[in-house]
Amino acid sequence: MSLPLTYDWEKLQSFCRDVFIRAGVPADRASIVSESLIQADLRGVESHGVVRTGIYLKRVEKGMMDPQTEPVIVSEHGSTALLDGSNNFGSVVGSYALDLAMARAKQYGAAVVGVKGSNHFGTGAYYAQKAIEQNLILLVMSNASQTMPPTGGVRPFIGTNPLCIGVPAGEENPFILDMATSVVARGKIIVAAQKGDAIPLGWAIDKEGNPTTDAEAALEGSVLPVGGPKGYAISMFIDILSGVLTGAGYGQYVNNMYENWNEPQNVGHFFIAIDISRFIPLELFKQRVDQYIRQIKNEPKAAGVKEILVPGEIEQRQTEARKQEGIQLPLKVVTELNDIGIKYGLQLSEAAMQNVSVSKGSEV
Amino acid sequence: MSLPLTYDWEKLQSFCRDVFIRAGVPADRASIVSESLIQADLRGVESHGVVRTGIYLKRVEKGMMDPQTEPVIVSEHGSTALLDGSNNFGSVVGSYALDLAMARAKQYGAAVVGVKGSNHFGTGAYYAQKAIEQNLILLVMSNASQTMPPTGGVRPFIGTNPLCIGVPAGEENPFILDMATSVVARGKIIVAAQKGDAIPLGWAIDKEGNPTTDAEAALEGSVLPVGGPKGYAISMFIDILSGVLTGAGYGQYVNNMYENWNEPQNVGHFFIAIDISRFIPLELFKQRVDQYIRQIKNEPKAAGVKEILVPGEIEQRQTEARKQEGIQLPLKVVTELNDIGIKYGLQLSEAAMQNVSVSKGSEV
Repeated sequence: MSLPLTYDWEKLQSFCRDVFIRAGVPADRASIVSESLIQADLRGVESHGVVRTGIYLKRVEKGMMDPQTEPVIVSEHGSTALLDGSNNFGSVVGSYALDLAMARAKQYGAAVVGVKGSNHFGTGAYYAQKAIEQNLILLVMSNASQTMPPTGGVRPFIGTNPLCIGVPAGEENPFILDMATSVVARGKIIVAAQKGDAIPLGWAIDKEGNPTTDAEAALEGSVLPVGGPKGYAISMFIDILSGVLTGAGYGQYVNNMYENWNEPQNVGHFFIAIDISRFIPLELFKQRVDQYIRQIKNEPKAAGVKEILVPGEIEQRQTEARKQEGIQLPLKVVTELNDIGIKYGLQLSEAAMQNVSVSKGSEV
Repeated sequence: MSLPLTYDWEKLQSFCRDVFIRAGVPADRASIVSESLIQADLRGVESHGVVRTGIYLKRVEKGMMDPQTEPVIVSEHGSTALLDGSNNFGSVVGSYALDLAMARAKQYGAAVVGVKGSNHFGTGAYYAQKAIEQNLILLVMSNASQTMPPTGGVRPFIGTNPLCIGVPAGEENPFILDMATSVVARGKIIVAAQKGDAIPLGWAIDKEGNPTTDAEAALEGSVLPVGGPKGYAISMFIDILSGVLTGAGYGQYVNNMYENWNEPQNVGHFFIAIDISRFIPLELFKQRVDQYIRQIKNEPKAAGVKEILVPGEIEQRQTEARKQEGIQLPLKVVTELNDIGIKYGLQLSEAAMQNVSVSKGSEV
């Protein structure tokens, strides 16, 4: 029997939620985790989508992540709070931290929430979108396990620590920058290696620290920070805020989700929420953001460029398209999810997209 | 008569301060501006050093900047404040904003201060160093007039909007990242053009938007954002926080200090100050920062690399060296400062470094 490759986003989200519930995850948390994964797939960020279902379940099964715990507020005063994620799912902990940051930002104008004892929290955009719905600006960052060398180094020391900023707009799409601090995602190098393609110089170094265009050699080596020393420095300050300041792991003390089966990850996050209306009337702000975005998009274009894009625009279009046309998954991911479904008595195929393309004739 | 090229930092700072005072700048403000300039020269960031004295004075003389005004707190609640710089010197306004952010961070744990109606504020590191002395973490950013195209664009639309983060350490040097969001400073391209050198591909585009290695063509075109779309997006969010949110100029509405003689610049800044002790005991934090820095510096090095550096380290060493050996200035800058001195009845040569190198024999 061949497995379908295109899935209805809502049904796929239900499937994932039900899998987590049957694996013992409390329903409210299973909802958060599955929503975070599906939103990444909708936005075209497949590396953070349902492909992570298997590894998350395995971390729970092996006792490396505990969905039963309660995140604990270690301290809170004024505009700051420190949260211990108690080793729950990263997206559960992140959502808890976001709520805390948003509530305090509304009360004090701005709030800074540090998080320790967490796990891989999915995409920063997941939180940014929720803050935008509340008319808040959000900066969110997280550290991650070692994948990049410092400038001049040979082996991984810092993570591709992501930085995300979300800003509400008026009629335009919100501004959502959600970037890793590496030149490219490691996943792109994996794809190149699978195809036998070379990679551009500057993406990675081999295990001796030499620049390489060989994808296999790059995978044994390290991905490089974006912009050389600038990306290295940005990744480092994200580690300082998310890890050194919060009491979470940092550098070598953030454990790899795929490789370390002895200890929790101890990932750290950092949330800064800002109430726009303390600075400028909300409607005026949105008008100014709209004007700014429109002016940029109307700039003269270089030869061969069809459109000037602003951060988040591609992902917004992907989301609209995938809600209509379904989420296409690689066979490998479908097979893994199907097996997980069988294990928990759930039918993945029931989440398949029906009648993906309806011809105009059929409307008659 | 030939002019000396090496200057004692303290005497040079006094010379600049006295110039500003004789040009009508109140003494306390003249002290801030001259300190900001000399600190940049000490750190090796000559582009933001005393080379700016002339243009600052000209902005004042032409009525484009007003050192007599008082910055005004437009609003303040809890952890936020909005400051109108009243078109005073950028470093005066920035210092005012920093004090506000630090005071509120101590009270509320963290504080966010937006600034409008300001001017070129010098280096972010100037503020970061002051926050570090108070055991605070500081993020500071500013927008700037148009020098970079959006990704896919042809002509300048955004500024090389700088991002600076300062973090106190224990025994190690503090972490100070102070970066423009361009690949390189425009100043480096000016130097290449003067020497007739080519520039590396990726630094800039010509006025048609084509990649160029011709420094002259690059100067007629635009510098490029660091990391392509990532640098573009970071520059854009700095503009949103510093300009769109605060009511300052943004994009095309930030006026060029050298070219626009009809209007004030209306630069915007954004300060985020964080009280470390709300998250972790200060001494423990400093130990962790020290450990982090030491571990990075002890990483294995790539072939040909003598030392792994952390952000701010080079500038710290430059400062120590220049305090001992003096600040060397190009003849063009010396000539301009000398002329300014003559205009205001001050002798630049009195600030020259005496006996720069003392041979060991002279100790006998």
